[in-house]
Amino acid sequence: MNTDCVFCKIVAGELPAARVYEDTEILAFMDIGPVVKGHTLVIPKTHYDPITRTPQAMLQKLIVAVQRIALAHIEGLGADGVNVAQANGESAGQIVPHIHFHVIPRFANDGHSFNWTPRQYEQPEEMTRYAEKIRNALQAQ
Amino acid sequence: MNTDCVFCKIVAGELPAARVYEDTEILAFMDIGPVVKGHTLVIPKTHYDPITRTPQAMLQKLIVAVQRIALAHIEGLGADGVNVAQANGESAGQIVPHIHFHVIPRFANDGHSFNWTPRQYEQPEEMTRYAEKIRNALQAQ
Repeated sequence: MNTDCVFCKIVAGELPAARVYEDTEILAFMDIGPVVKGHTLVIPKTHYDPITRTPQAMLQKLIVAVQRIALAHIEGLGADGVNVAQANGESAGQIVPHIHFHVIPRFANDGHSFNWTPRQYEQPEEMTRYAEKIRNALQAQ
Repeated sequence: MNTDCVFCKIVAGELPAARVYEDTEILAFMDIGPVVKGHTLVIPKTHYDPITRTPQAMLQKLIVAVQRIALAHIEGLGADGVNVAQANGESAGQIVPHIHFHVIPRFANDGHSFNWTPRQYEQPEEMTRYAEKIRNALQAQ
């Protein structure tokens, strides 16, 4: 437990939360500032952060829980869509540094729109250079 | 292969893409309309959609590939943050109906900001009602 971490305090029962799913390793609870009502967070009970330092086995458990919550949004809330989102680092908009997946139910005309503005690579070659850097970093892992 | 699917055509080599990772089951390639330059997509080679109908074992492979791409963004592009995003359904903003994870490198002052406007539940009881519906749907799975 990280004693400065809000999510660790929720896991420990020191802060309240509306829990929707729980097992020995994972907790899912309602986001109190929902982008769309029903917005749920899925976290490991152990403090890990960011995604790159979270054990693979834990990530695999988290994504299966995310899938189950998504289905529950569709079947239980009548959602006709679901967004999954996960942020790492301040520049990515992360606020609580304890890995968490957002599962957000979506409805036609729910009034929310993510800002998703595509940019353009200056030349096809610019994209190729980015791809090469990523490939090289993957090969070095 | 779904013959109407752009991503299936990329997998088959019928449409071009800047590939950064590939194995027998998974492909990662550059998004040609990047939210931030370096934006990478991770997909299964087999056509699945949405997340609720994607086999668990495939989801688990995808999230591990996502983790590796995130690390490559940090190490290869110098990103100081990473967003992971996955949309299901038109209301969620999904355009290509073949499951894909967006992995988006983030940099201080990269000029991008997702619209992330928290709403408020009308009463604490409203959140509790949502939680109960989700819990009941999970128990029925």
